[in-house]
Amino acid sequence: MSAKIRLYVEHPLGAGQSVPLDRDQAHYLFGVMRLSVGAYVALFNGQDGEWLAEVAEAGKRGGTLVCLEQTKPLQLPPDLWLMFAPIKKARTDFIVEKAAEMGAARILPVQTEFTNSERIRQDRLQAHAVEAAEQCGGTYVPEVADLQKLPRLLDLWPAERQLMFCDEAEVGNALQLAAETQKVAPWAILIGPEGGFSEAERKRLHALPQSHVVSLGPRILRADTAAVAAMTLWQQALGDW
Amino acid sequence: MSAKIRLYVEHPLGAGQSVPLDRDQAHYLFGVMRLSVGAYVALFNGQDGEWLAEVAEAGKRGGTLVCLEQTKPLQLPPDLWLMFAPIKKARTDFIVEKAAEMGAARILPVQTEFTNSERIRQDRLQAHAVEAAEQCGGTYVPEVADLQKLPRLLDLWPAERQLMFCDEAEVGNALQLAAETQKVAPWAILIGPEGGFSEAERKRLHALPQSHVVSLGPRILRADTAAVAAMTLWQQALGDW
Repeated sequence: MSAKIRLYVEHPLGAGQSVPLDRDQAHYLFGVMRLSVGAYVALFNGQDGEWLAEVAEAGKRGGTLVCLEQTKPLQLPPDLWLMFAPIKKARTDFIVEKAAEMGAARILPVQTEFTNSERIRQDRLQAHAVEAAEQCGGTYVPEVADLQKLPRLLDLWPAERQLMFCDEAEVGNALQLAAETQKVAPWAILIGPEGGFSEAERKRLHALPQSHVVSLGPRILRADTAAVAAMTLWQQALGDW
Repeated sequence: MSAKIRLYVEHPLGAGQSVPLDRDQAHYLFGVMRLSVGAYVALFNGQDGEWLAEVAEAGKRGGTLVCLEQTKPLQLPPDLWLMFAPIKKARTDFIVEKAAEMGAARILPVQTEFTNSERIRQDRLQAHAVEAAEQCGGTYVPEVADLQKLPRLLDLWPAERQLMFCDEAEVGNALQLAAETQKVAPWAILIGPEGGFSEAERKRLHALPQSHVVSLGPRILRADTAAVAAMTLWQQALGDW
């Protein structure tokens, strides 16, 4: 018994639990993927781990799945926030997808001085995070926050949260991160906009006692590349890799 | 004097050197970017570093730039090949772009047992590598090879080239890579297809004396994410970061 399709649902999961499907989910499972009664689906809700479920009712506008057994416990990612300045639509979608795959706990789009976008579609980005979790075998979906201004976020910065800050203008050493003693602290990674940080922002970030400057090599990386590279360094040094 | 636009040209560069533009380049510089005579452009050709050049003639079907001074020496990336199994068009384009940004010296699309694509558009992928080099400030453009079958590539594998092989089925330790003594050797990274490697391929890869298995964490990464993550680990441990 195993399921090829993984589906995120907003419903409690447990042995014998019935899970109702909405119209979109029914369309996907029965219309697109052609499942019928008796087929298996893997379900997760971000809280109860992954469950093998069986299709009990299949209709055009809905249906019901019944949970059979737990196939994975809940695996929470490390307490890592990924903060980034939204860029062109496709690349913003990619950053959210990558953050979910790489194991960020929370995704925060931030508006910097050189950020072009003044708004994001939070619901669309959240849907990308869900899809990435479905694909990557995760049992957790990071929350995508609404767009916030960077200065406001820094005003309210939590005292214990360390900040890995990738500054193109800086020749730091990525390895130094591993030597830090902040293994148990919560962390955040901040990826700047394509135009870089402003001088005022750079000053403010460097002044923050929790900030750790990290270099991502001698070439200029696009923001989506930088996001994956920075998360790789962090996961390897301080995370769950 | 500085240039906002970087352009790759297939022409020698040097002090006072005239560089003729083809129709596409002239359209881009004068039609799209609206440059006129006297404007500055940064040129590189993968061999002579980066040169500041001035527009001497601007026409609809061509034009001429004249090199003024060298602004960067040639910076060759480490001798790292990125090998990957082509996937959907957009993600294949991304892998090539990311490989060029991250500093791969050569990009080799490989056909594995579970690779869907049986052909690639080598010219289109090469154009993506050029564009990425233009964007990332590099002075080198990695060559994109034609699609090759993995077994054939392994049959002819160069004795001195080490192979970092990312196997989802393996719980290796990424850190071990740093402890290897292969700092001076040429390397290659192999990213498997979305469906993973076949049992036969996995056996063959593990048997290769040059191969080093590396884990990319507990979540399943898409091939484009895995490519960036693997190159990050390599660059940090053995490359030019």
